[in-house]
Amino acid sequence: MVISLRKARTLIRKALEKGRELGLKPLSVIVLDAGGHVIAFEREDGAAPGRFAIAQGKAYGSVMLGMAGTAQMQRAEAQAYFMAAVNGVYGGQVVPVPGGVLLRDRKGAVIGAVGVTGDTSDNDAIAAMAGIEAAGLTGEI
Amino acid sequence: MVISLRKARTLIRKALEKGRELGLKPLSVIVLDAGGHVIAFEREDGAAPGRFAIAQGKAYGSVMLGMAGTAQMQRAEAQAYFMAAVNGVYGGQVVPVPGGVLLRDRKGAVIGAVGVTGDTSDNDAIAAMAGIEAAGLTGEI
Amino acid sequence: MVISLRKARTLIRKALEKGRELGLKPLSVIVLDAGGHVIAFEREDGAAPGRFAIAQGKAYGSVMLGMAGTAQMQRAEAQAYFMAAVNGVYGGQVVPVPGGVLLRDRKGAVIGAVGVTGDTSDNDAIAAMAGIEAAGLTGEI
Amino acid sequence: MVISLRKARTLIRKALEKGRELGLKPLSVIVLDAGGHVIAFEREDGAAPGRFAIAQGKAYGSVMLGMAGTAQMQRAEAQAYFMAAVNGVYGGQVVPVPGGVLLRDRKGAVIGAVGVTGDTSDNDAIAAMAGIEAAGLTGEI
Repeated sequence: MVISLRKARTLIRKALEKGRELGLKPLSVIVLDAGGHVIAFEREDGAAPGRFAIAQGKAYGSVMLGMAGTAQMQRAEAQAYFMAAVNGVYGGQVVPVPGGVLLRDRKGAVIGAVGVTGDTSDNDAIAAMAGIEAAGLTGEI
Repeated sequence: MVISLRKARTLIRKALEKGRELGLKPLSVIVLDAGGHVIAFEREDGAAPGRFAIAQGKAYGSVMLGMAGTAQMQRAEAQAYFMAAVNGVYGGQVVPVPGGVLLRDRKGAVIGAVGVTGDTSDNDAIAAMAGIEAAGLTGEI
Repeated sequence: MVISLRKARTLIRKALEKGRELGLKPLSVIVLDAGGHVIAFEREDGAAPGRFAIAQGKAYGSVMLGMAGTAQMQRAEAQAYFMAAVNGVYGGQVVPVPGGVLLRDRKGAVIGAVGVTGDTSDNDAIAAMAGIEAAGLTGEI
Repeated sequence: MVISLRKARTLIRKALEKGRELGLKPLSVIVLDAGGHVIAFEREDGAAPGRFAIAQGKAYGSVMLGMAGTAQMQRAEAQAYFMAAVNGVYGGQVVPVPGGVLLRDRKGAVIGAVGVTGDTSDNDAIAAMAGIEAAGLTGEI
């Protein structure tokens, strides 16, 4: 299953709406395909200029490792040098915290990932899940 | 003047519509702010996975040099080693061809750039301009 | 459609056999998935140590641009600075010559790419196509 | 002694079979020569796309340092900044955990390395050793 641009748009729009509803800081949301390549990205007015790279890093590490942000954070806390090394082999593009969410199809295969950044990592993940559900997809935090 | 996410969305949507209207290949469109940082990006279904980097390269070089794609291309054709050197100092992120369009405010100050890729460079620029006009902005090809 | 490891193995084995049959120099063959990530690679005895990167570069550029080696070479010959710039945005991983072959499914969607290196670019492409046909896939040189 | 492609194939095939026998997650296996260059690699169906880089990082660090994964991990735990610095000089390509296995000839000289990734680091090393023994080589975990 391939994530269409139409679904990616819905996902981003709804994740941002969730952020407004909860009164979160300005968010940035990215949707990557199963190869870790960008389908769509939006940064809300008022967000810091460097948010693209953080959103991408959360989602990119999730796809490349097949491991969502929460699991990456646990590994980073247990074995910091391992996640540092993983970051080396992926060109420094991995941000191992919640807000990186794996997207799976009905059979469980990874079809892409979402990265949200701007508020706390946990709130970022809540906004991501709201968008994922609105787009009819299944997310793994 | 700052480009709002609302304007960036309109710009991208209308650029993609122009591509459909003209029967172009699947397009990818990026909008950068005055610092060269991503505000929004969309890649149409069927576009090659690497299109983000090319769209970004067209727009990034435009902002960083204050020179749109056509002028960059002329410089590249007249003095290839200069643009190669420029690419070195900007980390290889400059793609000096049409489809990179500068955005200016009424006083002529650069407020960002658009990058479109997917069809011929000239058609990419046409789609970019359609989006820019629909968003009420002024573009320099 | 996803390229299985089983198919990738058949493809590589048959491409190498073709090279032996034609008396080519030692070959190296890579198979990438639709996101440009390595599924399998083999380097024949006697090949130079750096062949992995060349095989990967031929196949990676093909996937990322959605353009096979022959088309990349034509673009490089017509507009050298453009392909140099493309190489910049893809981290110097693009080798724009024949031997990079796109793999498509029945609907024409890109499902991956093959990269062969070791002999002349044209012979590399012949070996690639032999492997691709033996694996029941469709290649675009 | 040079590792032939024939031996590398046997090694990979048997390591993957061991993984299936033990019910491990999908594995990826790389074989590098004495210069740290890729001879062969295979990624099983269902493995995350980024597994090549991790397999390579485990094996590359082993060859370049002449120190297998377990010894690298001990050094990383005792002196994290040293392994971080080592990673800097090797371009971020070192992943210092078990699953990186040194290959030695009868006189003890390093002739290459194997990298396995996909399950726990310890299980990765078990699969690597099964492949190494099947290929008639001697491994150091």
